[in-house]
Amino acid sequence: MSTAVARVGRAFRAIAVQDRKEIWISLRDEADCTAEAARVDARVAAGERLPLAGRLLAVKDNIDVAGLPTTAGCPSFGYPPAADAPVVARLRAAGAIVIGKTNLDQFATGLVGTRSPYGPVRGAVDPTRISGGSSAGSAVAVALGMADLALGTDTAGSGRVPAAFQGLIGLKPTLGLVPNTGVVPACVDYDAVTVFARELELAATALSIMVGPDPADPRSRTWPDSVPLDAPTEPRIGVAQQDQLAALTPSYGYAYRRAVDRLADHGMTAVPVELSTLLDAALLLYDGAIVAERYTAVGAFLDEDPADADPVVAKIIRAAAAVPAHRLVADTETLLIARQRAAELFSEVDALYLPTTTEHPTLAEIAADPVAINRRLGTYTNFCNLLDLSAVAIPAGAVDGLPFGAMLVGPAFHDQRLLALAGRLLGTAPPPMIIGDTVDLAVFGAHRRGQPLNPELIKLGARYAGEVCTSDAYRLVALATEPGKPGLVRVGPGVGTRIGGERWQLSVGALGRFLAALPAPMSLTRVELRDGSQVLGFGCAQDAAEAGRDISDYGDWPSYLEERDG
Amino acid sequence: MSTAVARVGRAFRAIAVQDRKEIWISLRDEADCTAEAARVDARVAAGERLPLAGRLLAVKDNIDVAGLPTTAGCPSFGYPPAADAPVVARLRAAGAIVIGKTNLDQFATGLVGTRSPYGPVRGAVDPTRISGGSSAGSAVAVALGMADLALGTDTAGSGRVPAAFQGLIGLKPTLGLVPNTGVVPACVDYDAVTVFARELELAATALSIMVGPDPADPRSRTWPDSVPLDAPTEPRIGVAQQDQLAALTPSYGYAYRRAVDRLADHGMTAVPVELSTLLDAALLLYDGAIVAERYTAVGAFLDEDPADADPVVAKIIRAAAAVPAHRLVADTETLLIARQRAAELFSEVDALYLPTTTEHPTLAEIAADPVAINRRLGTYTNFCNLLDLSAVAIPAGAVDGLPFGAMLVGPAFHDQRLLALAGRLLGTAPPPMIIGDTVDLAVFGAHRRGQPLNPELIKLGARYAGEVCTSDAYRLVALATEPGKPGLVRVGPGVGTRIGGERWQLSVGALGRFLAALPAPMSLTRVELRDGSQVLGFGCAQDAAEAGRDISDYGDWPSYLEERDG
Repeated sequence: MSTAVARVGRAFRAIAVQDRKEIWISLRDEADCTAEAARVDARVAAGERLPLAGRLLAVKDNIDVAGLPTTAGCPSFGYPPAADAPVVARLRAAGAIVIGKTNLDQFATGLVGTRSPYGPVRGAVDPTRISGGSSAGSAVAVALGMADLALGTDTAGSGRVPAAFQGLIGLKPTLGLVPNTGVVPACVDYDAVTVFARELELAATALSIMVGPDPADPRSRTWPDSVPLDAPTEPRIGVAQQDQLAALTPSYGYAYRRAVDRLADHGMTAVPVELSTLLDAALLLYDGAIVAERYTAVGAFLDEDPADADPVVAKIIRAAAAVPAHRLVADTETLLIARQRAAELFSEVDALYLPTTTEHPTLAEIAADPVAINRRLGTYTNFCNLLDLSAVAIPAGAVDGLPFGAMLVGPAFHDQRLLALAGRLLGTAPPPMIIGDTVDLAVFGAHRRGQPLNPELIKLGARYAGEVCTSDAYRLVALATEPGKPGLVRVGPGVGTRIGGERWQLSVGALGRFLAALPAPMSLTRVELRDGSQVLGFGCAQDAAEAGRDISDYGDWPSYLEERDG
Repeated sequence: MSTAVARVGRAFRAIAVQDRKEIWISLRDEADCTAEAARVDARVAAGERLPLAGRLLAVKDNIDVAGLPTTAGCPSFGYPPAADAPVVARLRAAGAIVIGKTNLDQFATGLVGTRSPYGPVRGAVDPTRISGGSSAGSAVAVALGMADLALGTDTAGSGRVPAAFQGLIGLKPTLGLVPNTGVVPACVDYDAVTVFARELELAATALSIMVGPDPADPRSRTWPDSVPLDAPTEPRIGVAQQDQLAALTPSYGYAYRRAVDRLADHGMTAVPVELSTLLDAALLLYDGAIVAERYTAVGAFLDEDPADADPVVAKIIRAAAAVPAHRLVADTETLLIARQRAAELFSEVDALYLPTTTEHPTLAEIAADPVAINRRLGTYTNFCNLLDLSAVAIPAGAVDGLPFGAMLVGPAFHDQRLLALAGRLLGTAPPPMIIGDTVDLAVFGAHRRGQPLNPELIKLGARYAGEVCTSDAYRLVALATEPGKPGLVRVGPGVGTRIGGERWQLSVGALGRFLAALPAPMSLTRVELRDGSQVLGFGCAQDAAEAGRDISDYGDWPSYLEERDG
């Protein structure tokens, strides 16, 4: 990779020569960026490992970056933030370099990218079309190569619709995993900071750095003890029934069906599911009482009638002043019931795969009809945060030469599973882990891939992490169990031999469940590996081991099985 | 215990002879109860194990019991429920017999027990004083021996204040653990069904049966993977600083300080803590926007101006019609911040121990000032559900010959810990488990009580569950570890000897954490006990065992240590 300094220079030249002024609400001084990049280069040269070294970052202008005003798309609302938002600070600490702040639908209210006094943001591929929003400038900056990564926010779909129109990855994490400190709220209970990138791996790396509670965000959440780290080998994927695709234009409908057909190429089974509870819940975001959250955030400001308020945005938010609280209580109840229906859905399928949006309108079409099309665009995105779901938007084909996007949707805290599915669909390596607190487990027999008890690990959400080999302190014996299992016995350094196995990663809760169900004579203990490191792994009771047949010379269980059965 | 039939007879005689008509809104037909009791007696005689066989149950009249109207304290609101609320059905399935439905502050709005067209409920001990409410009749029925158990509901303290005035146990579980299906909502997001009993063990047994999700309650929650099953050996108990006791009458203040002084007798350390964030949050229940939840529940009904509406209750609820939703959003934010402060508090102490209420007013005092005293009574109870805390109210002394109550308060899902602390304070056996999904672990060495690694188990919330002894398939060896540990080695049935150890219970998440931190050469495996059952327990690597000294003849690790060090 080129140096950070070189990358900054190229980005500023691209910004200067491309006729895309509307992307940016403010840009950092190039010299400042270059100086920061030089420091990053020096740290890397000194051997420091910076996972985002020299990656250029665009930040939606409702997220604080020290030294640049935060406007949320409304100049008179702008304020000089005291510090970087924690999510920005974390990415910078990992070597990313902020380039500037990007344009958005004012107060993140919209999915079009045109509701801004800084001008409508044009689509990256076809500038007569909308960019999508509200994270408009962030997505276009990444699509046009002015940035490698961009932060967005997503309440109704603002981190996914622009990803779809620009052919990008858009990660919408579970609410609360990424802190909202230093972010101007849209609907404070349903806002998620998102990340855009051109490649899944980079997006997931950035997300892994963004995740983690912040004491100043009272909605911060930590991973529960049990979370899936992967998807099943042959996942069942819920797809929209035909009658729930009426909102799509014919060409979008065709593209979606093509995308669904391709699931089978990746070993995934498409399962048509009934989505009406979810699609009905989606309507509550603007048509119900929840829009009052927007009034809580910026209503008092808009009631002063600032000249630079976007008229569509101001009308929506100011109307919410009068919503009574008892209606909000009732709508929240409706959402809770819809969450139950979503939970039932996810007991039947491993994820949903839906069109991200319904069509790709032109700027002229939006200007002529600023509300109805915007509403339609959110048909499949609106319900996600309301129902506490995670989502990953990915490129999934093309319509009329423009990107078409689809979206994997899962329960809260199933982000890593969605990333794994996205990796399979995009044909990339499994994305990096965004969950910190996991445990490695070495397995040597019936739990290996393709062996009869492997489904136990898969069911617990375990993730394969490569082969392992023990130190020369072990013997392997064939036990008289059903199904047949080997027992790994520690006999002492140099006295035994090296035995091959597999490394799996599990959440700590999954590990507890695995152990609670462990049958005799198996045990779990520390196993020493060839490189001297230790990993939790299988052992067995001494009497069972002594009654078994020593098969150490085979080197591993599959080799023994091959000889025995072959 | 006497037969269920005899108990029913005695209860109806007590109801007939005592001048306490105001306790009951409706009573079941005695003959029906007797017939049901006879069926329970027959099942018990046939050998069935019914944990609540013949226990008489009073049900607050905002909880459905098939065959009796549900009035919520307002006759014209009454409806004939189609079925028992799940919580009632569960208790009946365990052998409890419903006697009748009890009087309450109308729509569970009040802490006094006087806001009812069925008449004010008089205190059980001194009938010139209030019973407390809103679960007024339920508490008095149990206190006067007309029922063994009673169900209440608790939003502001309705399941705890009447417990304090009657000298009862009042269990206020974590929100969502007990389903609210078939319960008339007060504040639907903050309502908990509670249980009253004269003894802790019976209350905990009932709660263990009441707990569990119901598909018709969208707020149902299940236990997380990691929950404490006990309290530390030497708990740190947060108590109110002197300046936060201003709401108490002098005699209540004195009684509370006496109760705090007694903590030390039970090995507990009183830690004065700052409670102002919690006490401020408490004010939001009636003074803030959250009262709109009451309007959502019954506002439309009260707007019809029914003649039997309690004027104080109707005024409070109808005023909430006008509360704007954006204020509710802002108040909810305030609560979330207060929840963080509560979480910080509970990182410093294992539980709070607070006065349940502030004073014991007379009926005349409440009639003269129906709102201000009511508000003061909720000073220490109001915040619990708003901040998602669990609570256990217990008798804690006397004031002027009347019961004085105190309250253990902990984080959500710490109910079992609070029960354990309550048992210690009351000098009873550890209460039964209300958490189903736990794992037993047999320990033989350094994790035993009093041994150096026992704190690891305590820190994980493990609970001691007695001694165990293995089958005669084992040897015990002293390993060369630091601290010293024994290794349990399975050598085969009849070949070894019986080894003594301890059984501990852990949540499955705690077990995962314990295993993840397990150092070499220890292992966890199935251990066979003397009675042929199996339990998860300790083993060790074969090479370490072979290098150790056989100490099987000592029978257990403490005996060996005594000999070695003695």
